[in-house]
Order: sequence, then C-alpha cells, then structure tokens
Amino acid sequence: MSERERIKHLTECFAAPQLVVGNGDDAAVVRPGGAVTVTSVDAVVDGIHFELASWPIHAVGYKAVAAALSDLAAMGAAVGEIYVAAGLPRELSEPDFEQLARGIADAASASGALVAGGDLVASGQLWLSVTVVGHAAAADAVVTRGGAQPGELVVVTGTLGGSARALGLIEPGVAADDVRLAKQFTPTPRLAAGAILAASGAGAMIDISDGLLGDAGQIARASDVALTLELARLPLAAEVTDPLGAAVSGEEYELLATLPQSALAEAERTIAATGTTLTVVGRVSGGAGVRLVDAEGVEVEVERRGFDHFD
Amino acid sequence: MSERERIKHLTECFAAPQLVVGNGDDAAVVRPGGAVTVTSVDAVVDGIHFELASWPIHAVGYKAVAAALSDLAAMGAAVGEIYVAAGLPRELSEPDFEQLARGIADAASASGALVAGGDLVASGQLWLSVTVVGHAAAADAVVTRGGAQPGELVVVTGTLGGSARALGLIEPGVAADDVRLAKQFTPTPRLAAGAILAASGAGAMIDISDGLLGDAGQIARASDVALTLELARLPLAAEVTDPLGAAVSGEEYELLATLPQSALAEAERTIAATGTTLTVVGRVSGGAGVRLVDAEGVEVEVERRGFDHFD
Repeated sequence: MSERERIKHLTECFAAPQLVVGNGDDAAVVRPGGAVTVTSVDAVVDGIHFELASWPIHAVGYKAVAAALSDLAAMGAAVGEIYVAAGLPRELSEPDFEQLARGIADAASASGALVAGGDLVASGQLWLSVTVVGHAAAADAVVTRGGAQPGELVVVTGTLGGSARALGLIEPGVAADDVRLAKQFTPTPRLAAGAILAASGAGAMIDISDGLLGDAGQIARASDVALTLELARLPLAAEVTDPLGAAVSGEEYELLATLPQSALAEAERTIAATGTTLTVVGRVSGGAGVRLVDAEGVEVEVERRGFDHFD
Repeated sequence: MSERERIKHLTECFAAPQLVVGNGDDAAVVRPGGAVTVTSVDAVVDGIHFELASWPIHAVGYKAVAAALSDLAAMGAAVGEIYVAAGLPRELSEPDFEQLARGIADAASASGALVAGGDLVASGQLWLSVTVVGHAAAADAVVTRGGAQPGELVVVTGTLGGSARALGLIEPGVAADDVRLAKQFTPTPRLAAGAILAASGAGAMIDISDGLLGDAGQIARASDVALTLELARLPLAAEVTDPLGAAVSGEEYELLATLPQSALAEAERTIAATGTTLTVVGRVSGGAGVRLVDAEGVEVEVERRGFDHFD
C-alpha cells in the first residue's frame, strides 16, 4: 500500500463522523467536552515493550492504546480522542498493518475513544506513540498523584500479578484473543472506576504500570506522605500465588488510589457494578516512602521496586 | 541519567507554571482556550527525516516541533500545548539528550507553545513524535484543505526552494545556528500568517511539507477544484534559481492558501508586518488536479510531485 492508501485504510478503520474536521487534514478539530482537557502520551517500541517476533500484532496496537487510556483513568477523566503516530518497518506486510490498525481501533472502541488523527512514518523498528485526550468538568475534578492525605485508605482495582504471569506465557504463534493473555494483550483501562474514585473524593490516584510498589512510591513522593501496604491484603490474580511478585508486577493497568474511609462502601458498590473490584491494601500516614508489611506488621524487604528504561 | 533524572531535566527545561497539572503526573491538564481544539501529530525518525550522524541534535528537536506547529498554522489555529514522545538510543550521551531537549524547548518558546508532557522510551534508533494542540474560536474559524472555491487566488507565504538548497549543505560538524541552514534546522511555523489568512477568509490552506505541487494537489483533491500555478510567479529563496526545483522542494513549512481577490491587499499588508511575505502564485478554477504553467500559459511537465514514505 502507498502512504495514501494506508491513510485511506485508517480513515475507514477509524471512522468518526462526530469530528468537526477528521483524519486527512493538517489537524483534527474537536469540540472540547468540558472545562479542562486532560492529555497524556505513551510510547511503545518493539524489543522493549513487546516482541513483534512472538506477539500477535493486533495485541501490539490494542495494548498501546489501552495503556495510554489507563493514564486518563488514573486522572478520573472522561475519555475523548486519541492520536497515534506509528513508525513502520518497510517490510511490514499489508495484513500485519491492517491487524495493527484493527487492534488500535478495537481498543479505542472498547473504551469509547475516538481515533482522531496520527502520523505514519517509515522506521527501522516498529513503534507507536499514542496521545490520549480526555475531559473533566473542572480542574479540581481531576485526581493527581499529589493529593494523598494521612488517614486515607490505599485501594486498588481488580487483581495484581496477572500481567507478570501472562508475560511468561507469550510465545510465537499465540492467539491475540487467548484469554490467558488478556492482561498483556487486551488490558482494560479502568475508566469507569477512575471516574467513580474521582467522584468519591480520592486524594491521589495513579495507574499501576511500573508495579504497585513503584507506583505507590510515586504517590508517596508527590503527596509528601508515607504509604503502608499490607502484603496479605493484595488481591491476587487467578493462579498467582506469590504476593511479592504481584507487588512488583508492572503493566497491570489497575488503579491505585487513596480514599477517605467514609467513601469506601459506596465506591466499592459502584465499582463492582462496572465489572471489577476495589480492595483496601493499606493506609496513608505522615512521613515518606512506601513500606510493605506482613500480617504481623513487620516490614518486608523487596529488591526490585519498579522499572526504569534507562537505569 | 536515570529515567527519573531525565524527566526532571525536561520538567525544568520545559517549565510551564500555567498548566493546571504539569509534567510528571499521568496526564497534563489544561484549560481549553476556545470553542474548538485543533490537534495534530508529526513524527520523525533518524535516517528518514534527519541523519543524526550529520545533524546537530538541537536541530532534530527544534525542527520536529516546528514542523508539527506548522500544521496548526495551516489550520489558522492559535498555538496551545505540545506533547513529545521520544525513542532514545541507549548510547545517546547526556549532552546530546540535553541539546535535544533544548531544541524542543527553543522551538516551542519561539512560537509561544507550552511543552505540557510526553514520554521517553528506549529505542534502537532516535525518533520523536510531537503532538500539538491548538485552539480556535469556532469550528468555522478553522481553515481546512477542502474549502477552495473557483475564482479564488492561490497564495504562498515566504519563499520556496530554500529548504532543498539547505538540505544539500548539511554535513557532519555543521553548526545548529548556521544561518544558511535555518530553513532545515530552525524553520519558522507561520502561525501569525495562518491566523491572518484564516481571518481574511481563506477558502483552503495547507502547509508546504511535501512540496508546493504535491500539497496543491491535496487542496485540489479535498476541495474538488483545479489549481493553476504560474512557474514565473513562484517566490524563490535567496540563491535559488530553479523554479521547478522550488515547486517540488519539501519541508518548506510555508503556507499555501486560496483567498478571495478582495481580501488580498489587506492580507498582504498584515502578513508583511509579521516578518514574511504573501505572493500570488495562481488561481482556483473548476475541474480537478494541479497545472503548472509557464509565462505563456503552456503546461510544464514535472516528474516528481511530492514525497511518499512508502511508495
């Protein structure tokens, strides 16, 4: 396909009649849906975030979009538009290109996001950069990492450890819709839960992309508080038996938030209606840093606290 | 530098106190400035859009941002925020990383844009994906490629051919601020001229990234009209003597627009005050396609009409 044919394919694949000006012009034009716009960018590269040699390419597109949307969930924002830049190896086949586009479209449509534009460039290796735009009614309706208060509970959505487990099951030829790999291939950004937590008065929120402990550290640092997490309380994914592994499992795309005790029961109930769960895993106190403790309150030592591409 | 140190460097480099929520959280939060949001994404890859081996890395960052902002200019939008995802080779040195960031910051600040977020990932080759967000007072204040009307004039800002000429002068060790290379290393997105052309009632507008003829073809196709361009009228850059070369010179980042005759004099005058020029190069008529004609009105044949990464 020529570049024009590829763009035509994408325009059809990502059809979006509600855009004021859609794909194919210099820029997309949208009507902002609220008083503040919430925007995030997430990029993935072959060999770093996925292995094209063993991944179905549909999953590469799906996950890149879902992971980016997870950042909107972590702000409590309502999803709006997404823009995808892609570096495509010249040897990428047409069916692979179409499956990549289909994965992007499927992830967007699963969350009600609009693919509003992007760019295609030739590249030595496959990479995607996904910009997601969301909306919130007002600046104080957005939940940052910096608002945790001593006395709040620490809560997580869903379960942990499933992503690390799924990663170990990926092998060449595996199907994009293999349910054992859903946590890796078709993660669900917790947009509804994020909106509920924001409306419930969550003090701070982040999505678990680098592992519970590492991301808890981000909240502790940004909020200038201490977080104590109880190992025995971590909600473990099916067939996951090691809570320490679950505490450092990255790419979970679950939400980690701090919440006043008084808001817990209602948040649990309404989040259950969105198809996931909310679990109390610890508490916020004065101080600094993250402590992981066992059932007796004794601190558990953990070596690897997160993931840094450049360390 | 660790990833955290790199992000800290960028946060300082792109300081933006007017953000509601700034760099370092899951997403940036901004107050939309008008009734519609205008967004575009542009990506560049080492070996395709620039050669790191012979380019000052400051110019890589500067040009990527300027080229992306040029798409906002082409819509007549006011500049807002930019988000930059970068794929960084592990061997990139700290001074090079800082110069790359400085180039991004310099281009943003030259246009009054705010660097509001982004993502850094490891990559086998250097690439940048720049998302630019602009604002317009209303949907009909935005100029697309699709509104050219028969009878309108075809106008361009600035001069043409300088970009192709500068490209031939790039060699290892050349300075980022070499004035002969400004058209390649530090192009000026025509944001003020774009806003003036939009306010003047331009029917269609595009920025010249793939060459005048190719981009004129985009307007003709999107507007369902014919464009006739007069070779002798093309405004040639200094030391450029070949108008045919100027007609296919890409990455000019000048604006190509169609404009009612009645709006020309005022647009010329106000654009002159922004430090560039406006030149009539042809006219719009019924029909299809782009014709390039000589002083006698005889069609000139051109082989190469644009640039397609995948053809």
